[in-house]
Amino acid sequence: MALMAQREFNFDKRKSFSEWYNSVIYAADLVDGRYNVQGFVVHRPWGTRIIRALYKLFEAELEADGHEPVVFPTVIPKENFEKESQHVEGFVPQVFWVTEAGGEKLSRPLALRPTSETAFYQMYSLWVRGTGDLPLKLYQSCSVFRFEHETLPFIRGREFLWIETHDAFATRGEAVEQVKRDNEIARKVLTGKLGIPLNIFERPQWDKFPGADATFAYDVLMPDGKVLQVGSTHLLGQNFAKAFGIKFTTPEGREEYCQQTCFGPGIWRMVAALASVHGDGKGLILPESAAPVHCVIIPIIKGDAGEQVAKHCENVKTGLEKAGLQVKIDASGKSPGFKYNEWELKGVPLRAEVGGREAEANSVTLVRRDDRSKQSVPLAKAAATAGEMLEAMLATLSENAVKELRAATKQARTLAEVEELLKHGGIVIAPFCSIGADGAECGAKLQEATQGGKVRGVPAFSRSEPHDGAKCVVCGKPAGEIVRVARQY
Amino acid sequence: MALMAQREFNFDKRKSFSEWYNSVIYAADLVDGRYNVQGFVVHRPWGTRIIRALYKLFEAELEADGHEPVVFPTVIPKENFEKESQHVEGFVPQVFWVTEAGGEKLSRPLALRPTSETAFYQMYSLWVRGTGDLPLKLYQSCSVFRFEHETLPFIRGREFLWIETHDAFATRGEAVEQVKRDNEIARKVLTGKLGIPLNIFERPQWDKFPGADATFAYDVLMPDGKVLQVGSTHLLGQNFAKAFGIKFTTPEGREEYCQQTCFGPGIWRMVAALASVHGDGKGLILPESAAPVHCVIIPIIKGDAGEQVAKHCENVKTGLEKAGLQVKIDASGKSPGFKYNEWELKGVPLRAEVGGREAEANSVTLVRRDDRSKQSVPLAKAAATAGEMLEAMLATLSENAVKELRAATKQARTLAEVEELLKHGGIVIAPFCSIGADGAECGAKLQEATQGGKVRGVPAFSRSEPHDGAKCVVCGKPAGEIVRVARQY
Repeated sequence: MALMAQREFNFDKRKSFSEWYNSVIYAADLVDGRYNVQGFVVHRPWGTRIIRALYKLFEAELEADGHEPVVFPTVIPKENFEKESQHVEGFVPQVFWVTEAGGEKLSRPLALRPTSETAFYQMYSLWVRGTGDLPLKLYQSCSVFRFEHETLPFIRGREFLWIETHDAFATRGEAVEQVKRDNEIARKVLTGKLGIPLNIFERPQWDKFPGADATFAYDVLMPDGKVLQVGSTHLLGQNFAKAFGIKFTTPEGREEYCQQTCFGPGIWRMVAALASVHGDGKGLILPESAAPVHCVIIPIIKGDAGEQVAKHCENVKTGLEKAGLQVKIDASGKSPGFKYNEWELKGVPLRAEVGGREAEANSVTLVRRDDRSKQSVPLAKAAATAGEMLEAMLATLSENAVKELRAATKQARTLAEVEELLKHGGIVIAPFCSIGADGAECGAKLQEATQGGKVRGVPAFSRSEPHDGAKCVVCGKPAGEIVRVARQY
Repeated sequence: MALMAQREFNFDKRKSFSEWYNSVIYAADLVDGRYNVQGFVVHRPWGTRIIRALYKLFEAELEADGHEPVVFPTVIPKENFEKESQHVEGFVPQVFWVTEAGGEKLSRPLALRPTSETAFYQMYSLWVRGTGDLPLKLYQSCSVFRFEHETLPFIRGREFLWIETHDAFATRGEAVEQVKRDNEIARKVLTGKLGIPLNIFERPQWDKFPGADATFAYDVLMPDGKVLQVGSTHLLGQNFAKAFGIKFTTPEGREEYCQQTCFGPGIWRMVAALASVHGDGKGLILPESAAPVHCVIIPIIKGDAGEQVAKHCENVKTGLEKAGLQVKIDASGKSPGFKYNEWELKGVPLRAEVGGREAEANSVTLVRRDDRSKQSVPLAKAAATAGEMLEAMLATLSENAVKELRAATKQARTLAEVEELLKHGGIVIAPFCSIGADGAECGAKLQEATQGGKVRGVPAFSRSEPHDGAKCVVCGKPAGEIVRVARQY
C-alpha cells in the first residue's frame, strides 16, 4: 500500500490541503492509521526518526538551559488531579481511566496522564525545602493521553508525543524570565533550525491552561489558512504550589510558596507543521536538522559500469559522511526515476546522482529537494558543497514561509472586515476590548460571527498600544488591545 | 533526604544485600520511591541518564543489525490479546485495563501493553505480503505495565522500561539465526561494555514465553546468590503468524506463514544488575559506557589559590573533553571530602583532583572509583591516561564479576547436594531428565525441595551431553540434560 501510494503521489497542497495532508503522512511512511483503536496511530520508522530528531533538538536546548531529564509514571491517581480545581475541571473530561487490573477492580482509578503537573508537583513538595533546592528544572519526553473526539495524526490524537518541563523558582521574576527563555528556545528550534516562522502570543485569559496565571503559545500558519498551536509555556504562579504545598524556607526563615512554569513543546504537532509548511506536490521537504537521511545516493548504471559506479557511490558516501552527514546509498533494484520519487516523497534534502560520468570524473551531481537545483562538483568538494546547499535550502524554505505568513496577515477595523478577511483564512489584526476575563464575551461573539475565528491573543511581551480612538470590533468600547484572530486546528 | 543519605551511605552489600540495594537506589538519586501509586517510581535525573546510556548502547547494536525504530500505541484492544491462546492465558492476569474515558464507559476495554506482540502483529499482517517485505525487523524503546504484587525498583515494577524487537522472517533458519544474534548483542553490550557476565540459557518448556516455541534468557548472578533475568529472546515460530494471519507469497506463488522472533532487552533490570554486580560499600561503580559523567573535577582550594585552581579546572575539563569524555566540575561550596563521597556514591568512574600543586605543575591527579588508585600526570597526557584508566577499570570490574560467577557455580549429582549447595545461593549444575514439557513435574519437585531453586535451563546453543549413567537428581531416570539450577528474582 505504501509503495502504491508512493508511485502515485501527486497532490496539490494549495488546492486541497486536507487531501494532500491525509496522503502525505501515510505515503511518506510517517504513520499507519490502521491500528484498531481510534485516535491511536503507529509511528513507522521514517516518522519515528523524524520525531527523534525533533526530540534531540529540543532536549539539547533544554539541557543547555539547565533542565535535567526525568521519567515519571504514566499513571496519576485521581486524588492528585483533584487538588487544583481549575486543572481538574479543564482536564477531567479528557481523561482515560485505568480501573481494573488482573481481574480486580482497583481501589481508586488511575488516570493516563493527559499532562503531568499533578504527578510532578506532589514530588516537588517533597524535594523542595530551601532556596538551595531552587530553581528546580526538570523535563520528560513522553506520550500523553486525551480522549479527543475528532482525531488526525500529528494534529489531534488520543495518544501523542511531546516534552513537558516543570520548573520551580523562588521568585515571580525568575518564573517570568523562564517563560521568555522557553519562547526563545521554541523560536530557536522551530524558526532557526526548521525554518518555521512562529507567532508567539500571550493567550486571552479565557483560553489559558487550566491552573495557569497566563499562557504563551506558538501558532504556525498552515497552508489552508488555519493556525496550529505547536507548543505553549505557562506561568503557573503559585496556584499549583499552594495546591500541592511546594514551599521553601527563605534564608531569613520565612516559608514561601514557589513560583512555577511549565513548557510543552508539542513534538507531534511540529511534525504536522514541518510537513505542511515546507511540503510540496511531490511530498515532504525536510530541513537538515529534521532529516533522518541528509543525502541519498542513487547509482545510475548504464551498460557494464555497474561495479565502477557502485565503488564510486561508496567513495561519495565516505566523503559526505566526513562532514557529519547521514548518507544512504539506495542500491535496490528499482529504476532511478522510481527512487527519485520515493526519496523526494520522504523529503530527503539532497540527492546525489552517481553514474559512469561521475565515476570517471571523480565527481558527484548533487540535487536539492526543494527547487531541484543541481551542482556537479569534484568529490573533494562534495562535503562542503552539500553543507552549503543544505544551508541555502533552509534559508529558502524559511524565506518562503515568512513571505506566506506576512501575506496572510492583514489588518481590520470592523467586525465586517474581520469576517471578510477570515473567509480567506490567515491572521487578522484587530482592535479588541480586552484579553482579560472581561473580554470573554466579545471573544465568543467574534467566534460566532466569523464561524470559528478565535482571539489568539497579543504578541508575547511585545503587545502594542491601540491608537487613540480605536474601538473593539465587537462591543465598540475603547480598545485595550490589538489582538490577532484566526481559525485554529 | 537524598543529601542525608549521601552523607551517611555506608552499607555492606555482602552482609545485607537487600539493605544495600534499597539504600543505594535512592541515595544515588536513581529513583524516588515515594510516588503515590504502588509499584510506579519516579526516575530522577541521574537514573534517567544511566537508563538513556543503556538504551543508546542497545539501540546502536540493534540498528547495526538492521532493526528500525517505531513507536506503537501504549494501549492494545482486548480482542487482540485473545488471538493467541497461550499468550492470553500467560498475560491477562497481569494486565491493567482502561475502561472509561471522559465520563463514558469504553465500548471495549483497552489493555496497557504488558508486551506488544498483539499490537505489532496485527500490523504485520497488513505490512507483509511477499518475500520483498521480509525480513521485517522493528524495535521500540518504551515502558510496559504489569500488575505485579511485590515490587522493587529496577527489579519488578508495575511500569518498567525496556526495548522490544519484533522480527518476521521467511524461514525458520533465519529466525534461529536472529535468536543467536540477539544473544550476541546481549553479550556484547552487557559483558563487553558493562562488564557483567551472563549465563545465556535456553529455558525449560514450562518456563517459556507464553506463545513461543522456545525462550532464551540472560541470567545475572546477584550478590545475594540469586539470579536476575535481564532480558530474553523468543523463537515464536509460526504461533503468532497463524493467530494474526501474517502470511507471504513465495516467489513460487505459495502462501506461507512467517517465522518470528522477539527480543526484550530489560533496560530496567540492567540498571539493577549494573548497580548490584559492580557496586560497593561507597555506592555505585559505573563503567564508562553507562556513566552520565566520566570524570568529575574537584577543585581543592587552599589559601588564595582559588582563581588559579578554578582556571586550571577549566583547562583540565577542556583537555579531557577532547577525548570525548563527559566531564563535570563540581564547584559547589561543599568540602572536597563531601564531594568525593557524593560522586563515589553516584558511581562516577574517574575523579580529577585539582589543587594549587596541580595548577602550578600543569598536571592533574586522576583517581579510579573502583580501587581508588591514583595517577598524577601532566595535563597533556590527561586524556590518554583517563582513557586507559577507564579501560582498565572495566577490565577489573569484569574480571571480578567473572571470578565471582565462577566461584558461585558448582556441580551436584544428587538432590541432597543441590539442596545443600543452594543454601549458599549461586548456580548449581546438575543432571536432569528433560527440559521438555515432560520435565515439568521434576522441575516443580526440585523447586519445592530446594525452597525456590528453579531449573534455569541449559546453555543456549551449547548444551552438553550428560555422561553415561548420569541420572536426573529428582526422578532418577537417565538424565537427558545437564541443567543449571538457581533461585531467581
